[in-house]
Amino acid sequence: MNLILLFKNDFIGSGKVRLKGRRFNHIKKVHRACEGDILSVGLVNQRMGTGLVTKITSQFVEMEVFLDTPPPVGLPLVLVLALPRPKMVRRIIQAVTCLGVKKIYLVNAWRVEKSFWSSPVLIRENLEKELILGLEQAKDTILPEIFLKPLFKPFVVEELPVIAENTLALAAHPKSCLSCPNNINTPVTLAVGPEGGFIDIEIKTLNQAGFKTVTLGKRILRTETAVPVLISRITSLIQ
Amino acid sequence: MNLILLFKNDFIGSGKVRLKGRRFNHIKKVHRACEGDILSVGLVNQRMGTGLVTKITSQFVEMEVFLDTPPPVGLPLVLVLALPRPKMVRRIIQAVTCLGVKKIYLVNAWRVEKSFWSSPVLIRENLEKELILGLEQAKDTILPEIFLKPLFKPFVVEELPVIAENTLALAAHPKSCLSCPNNINTPVTLAVGPEGGFIDIEIKTLNQAGFKTVTLGKRILRTETAVPVLISRITSLIQ
Repeated sequence: MNLILLFKNDFIGSGKVRLKGRRFNHIKKVHRACEGDILSVGLVNQRMGTGLVTKITSQFVEMEVFLDTPPPVGLPLVLVLALPRPKMVRRIIQAVTCLGVKKIYLVNAWRVEKSFWSSPVLIRENLEKELILGLEQAKDTILPEIFLKPLFKPFVVEELPVIAENTLALAAHPKSCLSCPNNINTPVTLAVGPEGGFIDIEIKTLNQAGFKTVTLGKRILRTETAVPVLISRITSLIQ
Repeated sequence: MNLILLFKNDFIGSGKVRLKGRRFNHIKKVHRACEGDILSVGLVNQRMGTGLVTKITSQFVEMEVFLDTPPPVGLPLVLVLALPRPKMVRRIIQAVTCLGVKKIYLVNAWRVEKSFWSSPVLIRENLEKELILGLEQAKDTILPEIFLKPLFKPFVVEELPVIAENTLALAAHPKSCLSCPNNINTPVTLAVGPEGGFIDIEIKTLNQAGFKTVTLGKRILRTETAVPVLISRITSLIQ
């Protein structure tokens, strides 16, 4: 927790917060904070700054917070990701949140196992936990949006062309002949398939929606590796 | 398992292998292979090719193998990594093996917890399991070398300048003013610190060993994300 993410209901007065539970435990056990210590804090979707510990008990911590710094700029990259297996979802969501992605579409695909869609990982508040962990790690406050799209074709045909408008639309596809571009400085919409890749008809649908297929080469990467590698290669805008 | 990695002692005759255990189970349950099926195989540190399933029982599978394809070229990047927490070690070793890294030094640093060095993850045969999983995932046969260096200073002062000779030597350091370079096409030696980074004296020692410090920006990434992101950004040579 490189930044303690605050929410409006943490405030007990003007510029004063009281924290219990997970964040309190972390401040006590990991930061080992004492009264008078200064910690990095940020208000969700608002500015970041410092928290002066004014009181710490066995139940809660209180801080006076000064929010004077804008959060880092988000990455101009929308991620469209075939739903990975549930234990990967958590890691990938955290990692891309760390990298500054602010819009994530989790979509269906032929090679996505149906059971993945009923995983508790996809419950809104569980997804939000991962987003928060990512923001706390990266020192950011802007909560990414996640959209679940369990129907591939209607999403790609009707919604995706609008989402990808005025962006470079790329679909990672191991069979492509085109090498993934480097160091783009325009907005990107990046589609990444499931383990085993999109099937041919899905690639065709993506092509018709304006997506160019690109490859990272012969090596077949796990989704959890491929996604950060693609984002890092494509964009020069990680801040 | 996108490639079934074979070892010399799998051979029961010229061009003929018999597999039991993990690989047999995978071929039977995941590939659901039958006699006559053709699978991707590769001999460790040798060529890759195909395996024709000639016999499959409840105990073992036999294949005739044809090894006619060279493995993908390794990445000209040596990774020097402050020992991560044990559960991360497994993932990171697998991920960098997938990416084609062939030399990995796991080193000590001030912020590495001492207990990490006695983790069973670091037993030679456990590390080798992770390397094998990485090769099977990426379709590669060349086993990376891993070296354990539990003494930071003697390693960096005496050994690292020789290892990094004639390479671009970079140390990832969040406090650096120099942005991590993109798309290098020369050999690289990349040093990555622990969670929280190298301490100042360690950075000084690395500088004296010829390392330039570079940063990915303000966002603080977990080691498991930072390493693939750095490798992807630095090298244009992932194949």
